[in-house]
Amino acid sequence: KTNPDRLWDSLMEMAKIGPGIAGGNNRQTLTDDDATGRALFQTWCEAEGMTMGVDRMGNMFMRFEGENPDLDPVYIGSHLDTQPTGGKYDGVLGVLAGLEVVRSIKDMGLRTRRPIVVVNWTNEEGTRFAPAMLASGVYAGMHDEDYANSREDAEGRKFGEELDRIGWRGDEDVGGRPMHAMFEYHIEQGPILEAEDTRIGVVTHGQGLWWLQVTLTGKDAHTGSTPMNMRVNAGLGMARIIEAVHQIAMDHQPNAVGAVGQANVYPNSRNVIPGKAVFTIDFRSPDLEKLTSMRTRLETEAPQIAADLSLEIEIEPVGHFDPVTFDAGLAQSLRDASDRLGYSHMDIVSGAGHDACWINRVAPTVMIMCPCVDGLSHNEAEEISPEWASAGADVLLHAVLEAAEV
Amino acid sequence: KTNPDRLWDSLMEMAKIGPGIAGGNNRQTLTDDDATGRALFQTWCEAEGMTMGVDRMGNMFMRFEGENPDLDPVYIGSHLDTQPTGGKYDGVLGVLAGLEVVRSIKDMGLRTRRPIVVVNWTNEEGTRFAPAMLASGVYAGMHDEDYANSREDAEGRKFGEELDRIGWRGDEDVGGRPMHAMFEYHIEQGPILEAEDTRIGVVTHGQGLWWLQVTLTGKDAHTGSTPMNMRVNAGLGMARIIEAVHQIAMDHQPNAVGAVGQANVYPNSRNVIPGKAVFTIDFRSPDLEKLTSMRTRLETEAPQIAADLSLEIEIEPVGHFDPVTFDAGLAQSLRDASDRLGYSHMDIVSGAGHDACWINRVAPTVMIMCPCVDGLSHNEAEEISPEWASAGADVLLHAVLEAAEV
Ligand SMILES: NC(=O)NCCC(=O)O
Ligand SMILES: NC(=O)NCCC(=O)O
Repeated sequence: KTNPDRLWDSLMEMAKIGPGIAGGNNRQTLTDDDATGRALFQTWCEAEGMTMGVDRMGNMFMRFEGENPDLDPVYIGSHLDTQPTGGKYDGVLGVLAGLEVVRSIKDMGLRTRRPIVVVNWTNEEGTRFAPAMLASGVYAGMHDEDYANSREDAEGRKFGEELDRIGWRGDEDVGGRPMHAMFEYHIEQGPILEAEDTRIGVVTHGQGLWWLQVTLTGKDAHTGSTPMNMRVNAGLGMARIIEAVHQIAMDHQPNAVGAVGQANVYPNSRNVIPGKAVFTIDFRSPDLEKLTSMRTRLETEAPQIAADLSLEIEIEPVGHFDPVTFDAGLAQSLRDASDRLGYSHMDIVSGAGHDACWINRVAPTVMIMCPCVDGLSHNEAEEISPEWASAGADVLLHAVLEAAEV
Repeated sequence: KTNPDRLWDSLMEMAKIGPGIAGGNNRQTLTDDDATGRALFQTWCEAEGMTMGVDRMGNMFMRFEGENPDLDPVYIGSHLDTQPTGGKYDGVLGVLAGLEVVRSIKDMGLRTRRPIVVVNWTNEEGTRFAPAMLASGVYAGMHDEDYANSREDAEGRKFGEELDRIGWRGDEDVGGRPMHAMFEYHIEQGPILEAEDTRIGVVTHGQGLWWLQVTLTGKDAHTGSTPMNMRVNAGLGMARIIEAVHQIAMDHQPNAVGAVGQANVYPNSRNVIPGKAVFTIDFRSPDLEKLTSMRTRLETEAPQIAADLSLEIEIEPVGHFDPVTFDAGLAQSLRDASDRLGYSHMDIVSGAGHDACWINRVAPTVMIMCPCVDGLSHNEAEEISPEWASAGADVLLHAVLEAAEV
């Protein structure tokens, strides 16, 4: 088994970097705090004798050598970046549990035949730079490097410039590492495991996603002196499309969700009818047909809403992945490990996107999940217990030992 | 008559300070650019022999002495601050036409018995610090100074601190100056005068207003992994209330308007269901009964919308004035002056709020309006012609000469 206190202490140490305003974290990708968090992780890994590789997307590969360095390594990876008002565990648990696996292997005096590589993937959250899982997406060949480097944050700063600025652009080519398997351990971010009183989620599938950025253009005008019939109100159009997104998701129940998380009107002045609105729709489903159908319906309804209000509309996809089926053999190894360890487990579908969803396209991949309180995530109040954290780390340890051939 | 070129040149000079991004202005109240604009206006006035008084709200009173300094002066006032993406004429025309009246009186070698005071009222726009017409409101006894000083902008900076910072807090008491009459000349900001091909609007009434700031509190949560029935989506609540505001205004037609100009969701991240939304509703009508009825209906419907979505709601009034009836005698003097000058005129109701609406409570007050292209205002593309500008200035000159007893 892994060491629960050591894992928890590392989580709490990392959480001191980029503290939030309500007990969580604001350690967004490619900020100074991200750089500080990366350096701490590097120090910890190097103290265990691991060696670092960094690619041109800033992905960090910390290698723990195997008896046979020529065998394809087993990977354990997730992300250290957080939401602007994020929790302490989303992503971080998966990276630090990877480190804990290595530490535990050393404690036990074991040595695996295959190398083990613990990865921190850059910009998983996608808040600062859309889309999410950007650097693992480049790794898996889904995006090219120029696309990634050119992505802009709300202040117009580019991903590539910020990566250079914080000093974490490596020189390794992106993608193509030999990979025997990859494991990602993550908090569930949903309510199911807790409701079912189950310790371990064996993630067999992941939802697909569309992010659609909508720009509505109307006409700035005075809220007092412009007659109702002369208004071209982009804010009203946004309101109607937000409602449409909700209705579309409700009409696709079960196994579909939809919402608008990011919404801005311009010039955002109390006495100016918004002449512009920019917002992003997030549709998800584990069912490709439903996912496509939601997007299609939106692309019919939103232009109609815009036309009714004489607004111009532009709809730009800024994030997408199809539903994912993870490796069945690796999933079975997780069930077996959970049984051996005496932890209750169940198969689940990931509601969120994860780096594993991209890596699954280039190597056998699977995910382990632990419960989180009230299913709450992307919230500073995100919480898990040390026992939940370490149970998943134990399952990860067993499955990695099996895959890396002890 | 006034000098059209000189008035226009002054307008264009002032517009160089705090340029916008599309030909208009961003010279928001209590910014460095506001200070620069004030200083230019002071320089111009002092060159005409006028003397300055500044009160504790930063209101600038530029006095042109009369034959009898003991008589109550005639005031001409409007504002030099602009919207963040505002036009070159909104407010500025009224202040600089006041200066042009003084310049023209000097040109003609005339002297009025009463002093003439040209005023720049602080923070008319209300974008940076709600409510609008803040300092004229304090002058008229509608707000106290502590209230004004404590108003905060979006970055949490206080009105009082910013007034001190730019160095424009005077030591004169706010309010109580003897005032024989006040004139405010302003662009219409609506489409009526242009549509009626009429030069001069004699403003007999002004719309009343309610600004209601709504705060909805839900729960930040992951857009992917949170089931639809567990969401407490403040952004969806905001969308429904924006629609309700529109419906309420439509149900009160004619002579009523309603919209939401300022709208923010938090944390404003693509994959976070908004846990908070803050936005301001703007309802207006020249009819007090309709104005009250719109507010009442909103206060019934919005909490219902919030309750349906399990959201907490807070509704805070952040701006209000009742419909205004301007001085009938002064209005008649504007009609007479227009007739004398051969300018077409009509009575109109102001759709926007103006400093004159507050000053009307403490002194006989009236407004003059000129057309603006397409009725467009609170937009950098706001436009008027030099001829329109000077026709209104001519009427102002005649009416002021009459009121100030030449
Ligand atoms: N796990 C996670 O929250 N990833 C961010 C991408 C997404 O929105 O699903
Ligand atoms: N005239 C003008 O635009 N004033 C600002 C206050 C308002 O919104 O009416």
